[in-house]
Amino acid sequence: MTDGSKDKAAATPTGDPWLLTPGPLTTSPAVKQAMLHDFGSRDGHFIDINRRMRERLVAIVGGAAGAAAGDDEEFVCVPLQGSGTFVVEAMLGTLVPADGKLLILVNGAYGQRMAKICRTMGYAFEVQEQPEDQPTDVNALERRLSESQDITHVAAVHCETTSGILNPLERVAEVVQSHGCSLLIDSMSAFGALPLDSRKVRFDAVAASSNKCLQGVPGMGFCIARKTALSAAAGNAHSLSLDLVEQWQAMEGNGQWRFTPPVQVIAAFDKALDEFEAEGGVAGRGARYRENCRILVEGMRALGFETLLPDHLQAPIIVTFKTPVDPRFQFEVFYDRLRERGYVIYPGKLTVADSFRIGCIGDLGPEQMRAALAVIEAVLGEMGVSDRSAAAA
Amino acid sequence: MTDGSKDKAAATPTGDPWLLTPGPLTTSPAVKQAMLHDFGSRDGHFIDINRRMRERLVAIVGGAAGAAAGDDEEFVCVPLQGSGTFVVEAMLGTLVPADGKLLILVNGAYGQRMAKICRTMGYAFEVQEQPEDQPTDVNALERRLSESQDITHVAAVHCETTSGILNPLERVAEVVQSHGCSLLIDSMSAFGALPLDSRKVRFDAVAASSNKCLQGVPGMGFCIARKTALSAAAGNAHSLSLDLVEQWQAMEGNGQWRFTPPVQVIAAFDKALDEFEAEGGVAGRGARYRENCRILVEGMRALGFETLLPDHLQAPIIVTFKTPVDPRFQFEVFYDRLRERGYVIYPGKLTVADSFRIGCIGDLGPEQMRAALAVIEAVLGEMGVSDRSAAAA
Repeated sequence: MTDGSKDKAAATPTGDPWLLTPGPLTTSPAVKQAMLHDFGSRDGHFIDINRRMRERLVAIVGGAAGAAAGDDEEFVCVPLQGSGTFVVEAMLGTLVPADGKLLILVNGAYGQRMAKICRTMGYAFEVQEQPEDQPTDVNALERRLSESQDITHVAAVHCETTSGILNPLERVAEVVQSHGCSLLIDSMSAFGALPLDSRKVRFDAVAASSNKCLQGVPGMGFCIARKTALSAAAGNAHSLSLDLVEQWQAMEGNGQWRFTPPVQVIAAFDKALDEFEAEGGVAGRGARYRENCRILVEGMRALGFETLLPDHLQAPIIVTFKTPVDPRFQFEVFYDRLRERGYVIYPGKLTVADSFRIGCIGDLGPEQMRAALAVIEAVLGEMGVSDRSAAAA
Repeated sequence: MTDGSKDKAAATPTGDPWLLTPGPLTTSPAVKQAMLHDFGSRDGHFIDINRRMRERLVAIVGGAAGAAAGDDEEFVCVPLQGSGTFVVEAMLGTLVPADGKLLILVNGAYGQRMAKICRTMGYAFEVQEQPEDQPTDVNALERRLSESQDITHVAAVHCETTSGILNPLERVAEVVQSHGCSLLIDSMSAFGALPLDSRKVRFDAVAASSNKCLQGVPGMGFCIARKTALSAAAGNAHSLSLDLVEQWQAMEGNGQWRFTPPVQVIAAFDKALDEFEAEGGVAGRGARYRENCRILVEGMRALGFETLLPDHLQAPIIVTFKTPVDPRFQFEVFYDRLRERGYVIYPGKLTVADSFRIGCIGDLGPEQMRAALAVIEAVLGEMGVSDRSAAAA
């Protein structure tokens, strides 16, 4: 891959560019090869895959611990067709009842999206909004919940992909619990790489997807929900397709999905979960991503770039870099030239500053991060971008 | 494949059993191999695939004809993540306005499902219900629309997979149009194999999926909608994820999906559409399925089985056979033994009679249908089922 030839693009084993993005991301060859089959939806082997998948996902949050005791700590996994947003909408639409009210903690586009979901559904909600480069203000949350007697549920984003910021979930969960509210988490971009232990962080549901840190292909998401909370949510949903209670009950009944499952996507996810466990689960996966992130941030700073966030707020998922003031830096040119050399980066999504993003997740490691940095340096040289510093805020 | 060995199971080129089901179904090796890549969602190649896919799907209903004239006949294709039910719900949820009322034509489980979708969404609707072995009663529809002044939309199922029956869409469309109503079609199991020409059948939207007669893998559906109807539907949707207007506008804007697309599923669909066109489109695909169906029905009748439907009501998609009265016929045993020999069939879904189903669709032809019949005959012999006649109705 790093053959040093200027004219040859770097490429994954399947000939594709490396995706340094928040997803769809680079998956392993074995994950993709798992899709070379057709399965009937009531096939025994396929049903086994689904049962195993659901159990393994619950285990990631330590949610199987309560099952033996039959207590309130038992969690169940409900997979759902579609993208991550579909399962976030399903989580909010199913778990917030008609007489409930949701407080959404917003510091980026994915928090905003939850607000848009609630507006579209016609659900009652409020927003606690903060700048994109600041983590959730837990003191403000404490004040809000003390003042508002009608809030029943709080929705939080684990890692806000807009900026790459890590939100203080543990402290959020403590405050939410102390006010007797229910916490719903969008952990789309963090699940599997950042710890989320249901025995340490009190939540009722978390939504994530096959295609982020668990390194499957896109096409399904899942919600891991406290069984008592899900049981109490029957009849809440605004949508048949997105009703997590019905999806759960059908699966418990016969092990099958209610509606045609994306069988190849699920087979790939099963293989991806094998690889996740072989890497050492959350600890192993998180360690590789942290190293990817460290190499990236150090390398980009050495090239003169500035990160949006200080290191202590940076999740090892995706890093936002400020756009250099040098007018010779044109993002589309930069993007296209990196793409030609085999590395796909991501545009910025900030409202507060011009920026671009580079991801640390997927089936890639230090070798790819260093090779990407070398290509970035070469492309900047060709573009004549000598000053990579950003405009003063 | 048909090596005559009793001990060797028949198998597809990828080693899987042949799926004689309504889907997920057997896809070609090339369709599956198209999934061996990762794509970024804003990648130029991937955006090209999506543009091409949408254009080709509109062409199948002849819906591009009005585009040049810029008139009311122009149709657009809106793809959506998820199963077929997701896009049926999206079609109903988006196109029926708050002050509208939907009449659903029901003669099976998929019509019932549309009613359940509307109940869950809280939409106003009525049902015209008939037995599962009878096609939509167009005269009853005429009477209903004459009497009910508040119905604005009518929903019909093209081929009702519950029984395999073909509904009289052309005549339904004429009646709906004569009353100034809007027709919404669930053509999930028929699209691509049975003709549906927007210049001959007046409809405002049709929903279908990648994974039925177009022979892609499951994971996405699509709605082909009249542009004027879709334009007028902004703000109707009950769901952000299932809002076809927002999905359409985003795609028109930058060629990208709003939320993470199932990139491998889409790549497979692109290849499946190549194969569809190479086979001669609807005419070629439909002809192969009709031949599959003819061989199946004749062969099963020769074995003593009875079909639920008379031939003139039978769509060449999936055939319902009545369960033999002979107590030695146990469906689960029959199913498992066929599965062991490499053929997966499907349970019945009728409420009116015990039955099972065998599909005619997917990447299979006369050779597979004949081989399946030979295996069915052998298994019935082993099971000692000598009388395959059904109980009198």
